[in-house]
Amino acid sequence: MSETLGARTDDPTRFDKLNAALKHTAQAVERTLDQVLPQPEGLHARIPEAMRYAIFAGGKRLRPFLTLASSGLFDVPKERALRVAAAIEALHTYSLVHDDLPCMDDDDLRRGRPTTHKQFDEATAVLAGDALLTLAFGILADPATHPSGEVRSQLVAKLAQAGGADGMIGGQMIDILAPERDYGEAEVILLQALKTGALFEFACEAGAILAEKGEDDRKRMRDFSRGFGLAFQIADDLIDVLGTEEEAGKAVGKDQEQGKATLVSLLGIDEAREMAARLAREAVNALSPYGQAADDLRALPFFLLDRPA
Amino acid sequence: MSETLGARTDDPTRFDKLNAALKHTAQAVERTLDQVLPQPEGLHARIPEAMRYAIFAGGKRLRPFLTLASSGLFDVPKERALRVAAAIEALHTYSLVHDDLPCMDDDDLRRGRPTTHKQFDEATAVLAGDALLTLAFGILADPATHPSGEVRSQLVAKLAQAGGADGMIGGQMIDILAPERDYGEAEVILLQALKTGALFEFACEAGAILAEKGEDDRKRMRDFSRGFGLAFQIADDLIDVLGTEEEAGKAVGKDQEQGKATLVSLLGIDEAREMAARLAREAVNALSPYGQAADDLRALPFFLLDRPA
Repeated sequence: MSETLGARTDDPTRFDKLNAALKHTAQAVERTLDQVLPQPEGLHARIPEAMRYAIFAGGKRLRPFLTLASSGLFDVPKERALRVAAAIEALHTYSLVHDDLPCMDDDDLRRGRPTTHKQFDEATAVLAGDALLTLAFGILADPATHPSGEVRSQLVAKLAQAGGADGMIGGQMIDILAPERDYGEAEVILLQALKTGALFEFACEAGAILAEKGEDDRKRMRDFSRGFGLAFQIADDLIDVLGTEEEAGKAVGKDQEQGKATLVSLLGIDEAREMAARLAREAVNALSPYGQAADDLRALPFFLLDRPA
Repeated sequence: MSETLGARTDDPTRFDKLNAALKHTAQAVERTLDQVLPQPEGLHARIPEAMRYAIFAGGKRLRPFLTLASSGLFDVPKERALRVAAAIEALHTYSLVHDDLPCMDDDDLRRGRPTTHKQFDEATAVLAGDALLTLAFGILADPATHPSGEVRSQLVAKLAQAGGADGMIGGQMIDILAPERDYGEAEVILLQALKTGALFEFACEAGAILAEKGEDDRKRMRDFSRGFGLAFQIADDLIDVLGTEEEAGKAVGKDQEQGKATLVSLLGIDEAREMAARLAREAVNALSPYGQAADDLRALPFFLLDRPA
């Protein structure tokens, strides 16, 4: 099938290197997650069981990949980058577990499996989510993540900002309120910037923080993440409109059904595709100082837009 | 009324100084909380509104008091201690908001007011709880809390441990599973050590961490907190059995109704009272090196056991 979300595929091997890098990173971060997650032992074994069920559900591990790739630009030791990536994935996973709850998006299926509250129960899902969120900060604050307490504290402060009331959680609140409000393009862009953009931004900037780089490098990483994040979100929304449940690994068509505001519903499919391609090109521009070392990062937004639709 | 939870009151002015110190600390920590909590602004204003509703519900602010009192033993600047106390209260409040949810303890009333999910809705309560938990770590990691990044990271790591899967959250899981299990005294003591003890321990040890004290002082603070925490829990369970809804500010008789295991249900009222008084005396022993500076901390467990029943 030559029709894709964002562009026509001209070279079927174009993303082979990126695909291999994504798989390699996913395996490495899953090994780290296995080490840092608590073991299912004792009277409360159900909590680590549910945490592990939620975490080891597959998934592209996009945020860990961003952290590993940005760390690679700045020669950060891989073990440090993997710990930060694991923290980000723990926080991302908690947000999925809580968002899937009946009182929120009420999803039964996630990555083709029962959601955590369906597999266990609602109380366990709330608590396992809380524990994953708490663990994310515990991983960052551990001296194994970086020898400098200043760097560790900065990672914690930035993740708390990105994941907090004025970041990811605020975005989820705006999303939940969408059906009763009449959001325009500006509101939807803000919604996405908070709901998914803030954590992408942290995932990208983390490499520069771990390397104790200055504001120039940090800003480039943030600039890349902003274009990338919005392009990613448009691709995700296109899948909800155009994809099948099998491809998406979750229920599709839910945005429209639930009255969720997306750029695809506001702009239409064609214009949203064009916007995503434009954002991807802008994102890549921010990486120009980094030469070939940034090739995987450059390919990533186009790879996401190249998924079959 | 001369009958009390733990002992007969001989001197009605015995706790006047402690009472004044508790009120003073509560006011100071509430001012700090007002400064560090996000403002209800923007499209997601509902989140800070719910966070503030949950936080500013009154309450004794016992954990902040423990942090201020332990910091006072080690000459920690009060502003630093207040920030850590605010972080602990934010984390404690998130745990109340989530524990009150219909899928957990299903409580409609907390401190005499509708619980957060009754006042707002369940989704908002889940998210506001998540945001309070996230904020707790953000406060600790902020350079305003301590000039040393090592100290800030250590505070984050210890709070993540105390509040995590093998701490408070594990305790709540064990508590939820109680009706389908047959816990004995050892299991109930473990349950309480995790569910409430771990955070009390952090609140007490935080003073020594802020002062960069060695293991001797830290251990004394932990020893005090362990006896204190279990005595506090017994007092709380006695109120559930003996108190009125008006005194408790929440529904009473729920432990028995929900098949919750407590030391009061296992040992009976009289033996539980004796155990609490014994634990309080043991806790106070750990404070002997600190002279008069520790008088408020020494009085605290007896004050809690002295509440009318």
